[in-house]
Amino acid sequence: MTRNTVEKTSVTLLGLGAMGTALARAWLAAGHPLTVWNRTPARAAAVAAEGARVADSAAAAVAANPLVVVCLLDDASVGEALAGTDLAGRDLVNLTTCTPAQARARAEWARARGAGYLDGGIMAVPPMVGVPQAGGYVFYSGSREVFERHRETLAVPVGTTYVGQDAGFAALHDVALLSAMYGMFAGAAHAFALIRKEDIDPTSFAPLLADWLVAMAPAVHRTADRLRSGDYTEGVVSDLAMQVAGTPTFLSTAEQQGVSPELLGPYFALMRRRLAGGGGDEDLTGLIDLLVR
Amino acid sequence: MTRNTVEKTSVTLLGLGAMGTALARAWLAAGHPLTVWNRTPARAAAVAAEGARVADSAAAAVAANPLVVVCLLDDASVGEALAGTDLAGRDLVNLTTCTPAQARARAEWARARGAGYLDGGIMAVPPMVGVPQAGGYVFYSGSREVFERHRETLAVPVGTTYVGQDAGFAALHDVALLSAMYGMFAGAAHAFALIRKEDIDPTSFAPLLADWLVAMAPAVHRTADRLRSGDYTEGVVSDLAMQVAGTPTFLSTAEQQGVSPELLGPYFALMRRRLAGGGGDEDLTGLIDLLVR
Repeated sequence: MTRNTVEKTSVTLLGLGAMGTALARAWLAAGHPLTVWNRTPARAAAVAAEGARVADSAAAAVAANPLVVVCLLDDASVGEALAGTDLAGRDLVNLTTCTPAQARARAEWARARGAGYLDGGIMAVPPMVGVPQAGGYVFYSGSREVFERHRETLAVPVGTTYVGQDAGFAALHDVALLSAMYGMFAGAAHAFALIRKEDIDPTSFAPLLADWLVAMAPAVHRTADRLRSGDYTEGVVSDLAMQVAGTPTFLSTAEQQGVSPELLGPYFALMRRRLAGGGGDEDLTGLIDLLVR
Repeated sequence: MTRNTVEKTSVTLLGLGAMGTALARAWLAAGHPLTVWNRTPARAAAVAAEGARVADSAAAAVAANPLVVVCLLDDASVGEALAGTDLAGRDLVNLTTCTPAQARARAEWARARGAGYLDGGIMAVPPMVGVPQAGGYVFYSGSREVFERHRETLAVPVGTTYVGQDAGFAALHDVALLSAMYGMFAGAAHAFALIRKEDIDPTSFAPLLADWLVAMAPAVHRTADRLRSGDYTEGVVSDLAMQVAGTPTFLSTAEQQGVSPELLGPYFALMRRRLAGGGGDEDLTGLIDLLVR
């Protein structure tokens, strides 16, 4: 343990929502001097009691330390909070949820003000922060120098995964993984809806569902291989033609169980479009190409 | 090992498509005497070479053994194949893909003909059959007596999971889990589409995606608990109002990346409907209730 023997990097943190507060507590618990600022000062009281210094203004907070982390509501809030602050020579680490285009524009904006810029996409909810075994992490992209300089400090609240110099890549990875999660949740919602009126205990059904999803998730590796090779047909076990032939059973079952097909239908429609376009001997990878304009 | 010391149960199998052939090979490899029938006789040649007896007709195949397994194209094929066979005293195990209603009707049909009935939903593709470590299994429902009587024989090709006396429950579980899988695949397709035009190697992205889906899949346990308790609000970390507020970032990112929102949009629309109905402080469980008419 280096605690108490090596000086910890001082951190400035703007934004004390649920996530910002969790980050603040993790840095304080690890012995990092912390200066905080929040638009609504009352929210700073809790972390002040745990040792944080509360700045009177965003400008004062930014002036306090070379490492400035922002975790605000949205990109507009970042622009508002940092307007009138002197970012020259600062390393700005932006953990605010945004789109890839917003992250890229914010990186340019920071560069024009003489700051290093690192964008982050948080793959965790606040209760996972400061709990290493919870598996949360942050995607980082942008300046590799800023990332390497603060790597250890950034790794204190949650893990770090650097995904490239393009400042938009962290947000892109974040949105992509969360989008996939919503797809999985939509599928699970349909599954639970199918058994809703039956004498089936959802807590007995859930382990079957979870195990099945966990077993099927690695199929994305094969999808990635096919996207890279461009070959969607070699070694296909259940081809698109067979899978489309199976869809009436799914839709009839939904109808029998009184379940709306609205979450399942669009994927099946895409399968039919690809089949109509001649992809009958492919697996499902070709559907991705149909999604991209 | 009991092999070569205990007589193995004789099996009749109707249907030698890819799945039927895989089942046949697994039983033959385990030393079970096997009688097969297929509408197109040529497909029986391969398993005949491995020791299967080929019956001239479905009626002769059914007459050969008390345990009759059918694995055909669809429910109509089952009716056609078994018309004119004498099922009295037989145990009919139907592994043909069908809806819960078709399975229930087929169970009644079999009962009227003096046969025991067990319905099965296969959670495996043919290459997983006869490979215990592949994790494939079959959901069974219907007669518990038939299941217990043939449990060991049925467990030879893939694992077995009995889910209740209602003959429709195997098909319902099968369709529910596969529906959830299609949802997950839809989410993954959207995710891959988002990075399609970027300088991001899909094979580097896939492990991040797979790990994330595996980490998030256990969320279905909490959903099941809430469905059982009826409380969708206690201990919610990211409530529906917050999640709906985040959806514009997902839709803008899709637009920026040139990706159609058709797979993601319906779930977000359902989230907005639930929020409009007053579920802002819930998690996402309430969406399931909106799906069920």
